[in-house]
Amino acid sequence: MTDLPEELKLVLTFFGGTGDLAKRKLYPSVFNLYKKGYLQEHFAIIGTARQEMSDKEFKDLVKDSIEDFANDFSEQEIDKFISHFYYIAHDVTNIDSYEPLKALVEDLDQKYTTDGNRIFYMSVAPRFFGMIAKSLKSEGLLSTNGYNRLMIEKPFGTSFQTAQQLQNELEEAFNDDQLYRIDHYLGKEMVQNIAAIRFGNPFFDNTWNHNYIKNIQVTLSETLGVEGRADYYDTAGALLDMIQNHTMQIIGWLAMEKPDSFSDVDIRNAKNKAFSSLRIYKGKDEVSQNFVRGQYVGRKSAELNYNQEAGVAENTQTNTFIAGKLEFNNETWKGVPFYIRSGKKLAEKTTRIDVVFKPTAFNFGGNAGLQGYPVLTIIVDPYGSIKLQLNAKAVTDNFFLRKINLDWNVSEQDKTDSPEPYERMIHDTMNGDGSNFADWNGVATSWKFIDEIVKVYDENQAPLELYKSGTMGPDASDELLEKNGDAWVLQGNHRKTIDANL
Amino acid sequence: MTDLPEELKLVLTFFGGTGDLAKRKLYPSVFNLYKKGYLQEHFAIIGTARQEMSDKEFKDLVKDSIEDFANDFSEQEIDKFISHFYYIAHDVTNIDSYEPLKALVEDLDQKYTTDGNRIFYMSVAPRFFGMIAKSLKSEGLLSTNGYNRLMIEKPFGTSFQTAQQLQNELEEAFNDDQLYRIDHYLGKEMVQNIAAIRFGNPFFDNTWNHNYIKNIQVTLSETLGVEGRADYYDTAGALLDMIQNHTMQIIGWLAMEKPDSFSDVDIRNAKNKAFSSLRIYKGKDEVSQNFVRGQYVGRKSAELNYNQEAGVAENTQTNTFIAGKLEFNNETWKGVPFYIRSGKKLAEKTTRIDVVFKPTAFNFGGNAGLQGYPVLTIIVDPYGSIKLQLNAKAVTDNFFLRKINLDWNVSEQDKTDSPEPYERMIHDTMNGDGSNFADWNGVATSWKFIDEIVKVYDENQAPLELYKSGTMGPDASDELLEKNGDAWVLQGNHRKTIDANL
Repeated sequence: MTDLPEELKLVLTFFGGTGDLAKRKLYPSVFNLYKKGYLQEHFAIIGTARQEMSDKEFKDLVKDSIEDFANDFSEQEIDKFISHFYYIAHDVTNIDSYEPLKALVEDLDQKYTTDGNRIFYMSVAPRFFGMIAKSLKSEGLLSTNGYNRLMIEKPFGTSFQTAQQLQNELEEAFNDDQLYRIDHYLGKEMVQNIAAIRFGNPFFDNTWNHNYIKNIQVTLSETLGVEGRADYYDTAGALLDMIQNHTMQIIGWLAMEKPDSFSDVDIRNAKNKAFSSLRIYKGKDEVSQNFVRGQYVGRKSAELNYNQEAGVAENTQTNTFIAGKLEFNNETWKGVPFYIRSGKKLAEKTTRIDVVFKPTAFNFGGNAGLQGYPVLTIIVDPYGSIKLQLNAKAVTDNFFLRKINLDWNVSEQDKTDSPEPYERMIHDTMNGDGSNFADWNGVATSWKFIDEIVKVYDENQAPLELYKSGTMGPDASDELLEKNGDAWVLQGNHRKTIDANL
Repeated sequence: MTDLPEELKLVLTFFGGTGDLAKRKLYPSVFNLYKKGYLQEHFAIIGTARQEMSDKEFKDLVKDSIEDFANDFSEQEIDKFISHFYYIAHDVTNIDSYEPLKALVEDLDQKYTTDGNRIFYMSVAPRFFGMIAKSLKSEGLLSTNGYNRLMIEKPFGTSFQTAQQLQNELEEAFNDDQLYRIDHYLGKEMVQNIAAIRFGNPFFDNTWNHNYIKNIQVTLSETLGVEGRADYYDTAGALLDMIQNHTMQIIGWLAMEKPDSFSDVDIRNAKNKAFSSLRIYKGKDEVSQNFVRGQYVGRKSAELNYNQEAGVAENTQTNTFIAGKLEFNNETWKGVPFYIRSGKKLAEKTTRIDVVFKPTAFNFGGNAGLQGYPVLTIIVDPYGSIKLQLNAKAVTDNFFLRKINLDWNVSEQDKTDSPEPYERMIHDTMNGDGSNFADWNGVATSWKFIDEIVKVYDENQAPLELYKSGTMGPDASDELLEKNGDAWVLQGNHRKTIDANL
């Protein structure tokens, strides 16, 4: 048996403690941390929600959640674990209801000797975030002898203005470094691997700039459609659902300079420095030149068009696909486009990063053929993989170049061992490590950038390109890259290979 | 059917035309070039040797050789092919016997309209090389309206002095750029791939120097013993059999700067520039500090020690294993050791190159663990493979580094398509491409370097380390690297892993 890790002591309160996310992800994640020994004796978990519920009923709910969503547990383990769980009915909008919650938190702090450490996890509708934060402070729920940390579910605002307003409200009660804004893509193993690959290998560390890199591509593609979430999706679209948050956060890891250290503060500073040089497009011309919005139509007659889906307005202009080109106005990325795309009903479900390198200056001579573009690919979903496409010699009588592919794939053991992003994020918050959370400056810049695009789209000043479901989006997405002599590394089967050299 | 390549026209004369190499390698290689269409109508092949033989007998010998050693042929193809073959008995030491050979060469030139192009392939004992070359000139066998090229089998001398003498003799008749010194390791696909990998990928092209590379390792290991070649081997040892030629030639491709172009002249110049800065060890201290010689003993009682093998002197001091550290006194390779080793009766039969990179300057922090050394491995034998060992993130709750391996292996189709080194070399000579031949400066430097080591060994001034067969050589080989904080990437199973970090 391996040694147990150092025990973490705290009272962790879940607002929205009877909700779907809590049951599917949060309790199983906390249970895993318990099984691994990060939580041992000195911890208590509080669930709160509006409804009345006994501790017994709540413990049963948690037990069900673990039995449904955790792997590998014994009855005995669960029973010991849920003995640390407590429920209290609570109306976040009623200031009076914070008093009994405070009493419970303090009781449990005493009972379990948790050293005054408190995490509050807001898994409720975003409109309550500010109110909860302010009330925690005003009603004295913040401890004075331990830490206080706030975990905030997405979305963080719906525009720069609303995000700024939320940030202001949160900052009335918390310092910015006590805020842990969740973006579960940052909790994914292979997203966290970007830093290791970039900074831990000299041939990448020293070529990660405009001298050697031709373009960087980030794809977050889904094969599913709106699947009953039309209510939400038809107001958000791909731009707010996937680009403003996840995609931009991944871009942060790719575009940042090397941080002074691997601390969360230095990582944040490095990302902010990159984001501060992001070119913000203004007006319909710049937006149309650099962004493509699309909406799917059924490829076969039996398939629905997006505007035929239940809950979607017939005249909807919502983007179910976005492709865009980002530019960073700094020395490192001079002339290097960062291409991003995301959408529903696409040919492939994947999250992947393709770093396309320039050929070297070396000329192999007339017979050898042109160098292709070497590509480093990091596949995040559906399973971790790293690929490196190299120029090599073809097996021929004369010297010709060809491309070869080196591969690594996560093992089955890796898949079993990989913590859920939520487990990672709760664990990191308990450790006070903000490296893998969205920070305010990044979020703010992303909103400022996205707002300008939204403005153009809301006023219908840019074309809405229709694309057939099961493809990789509209032709305009490919043409966006062609204009720069680039091409998507991952192309749909239906697409011709635009650049034979790639 | 693909288009035929441009036809090559020539008369190709094989000295030693009834020998083993001719039958096993040379005729099947020429046949493959014929099948591929490089040779069509305008060519003739002459076999010569001392013995009398009719054209018919010779054609039968060639036919047997093709049937035994070529793949995929029809009777009809062979018959058409061997109609271009001619035999003439010839004593290379008898000046009078060049006259009939001349007449035949000129006849065939006319008959097949070969434009006066002539290649002479010397597959005879090295002591005849100079004599043949001079006689070809003096007796008027060199054409005046086409090219004249001389293919020279190894070994090229047995010391710097004898090599220089041979070079002088050859130069009496040929210009240096008409000399094609064969080193069949340079004809191997994966050795030729070194240039493509190095110069065709920006992340390697720009890190191929002392700033990023910790050391480079070249291993040519055999599992077999002397296998009835003791007569030759006991005078040569691993140092002359494998190091002076093959290993040093591979080192040339690895240590050279980027050539001005990919022409044979520029490649030669770049290699020579590297060799000119090779540090030559003088005297027993320098040799012993930088080179290890070994001799195998049977691991089990049933296995012979080297000195018990048939044909080996009982008190033999011959090295059946050599490990060495090369240094290049130039800016590019400041402080970067090139480790080489070769031997018989080792644990693994392989030819491989391991380029060991330094960790980056980035510190991932106390918990992440040290970066390992990234390694680019090019496996030449027994099958082509390229591996890249990267630092990546381990699948753990905290951020830890681990090593992962990206792999590429030649396909079965590649193996089938790979030309024999001899086919490559004959083809290259027909095309006048000297890129993959040993050039005089490199050979000369290698001999000057090796001579100093031989001197010390001949006088028994360095220890002869015994090693058990089936291992990767004596402990002193590992210790040679340990002194510099390095370790062989390919270690024998019996060896402890010296550097846990590697």
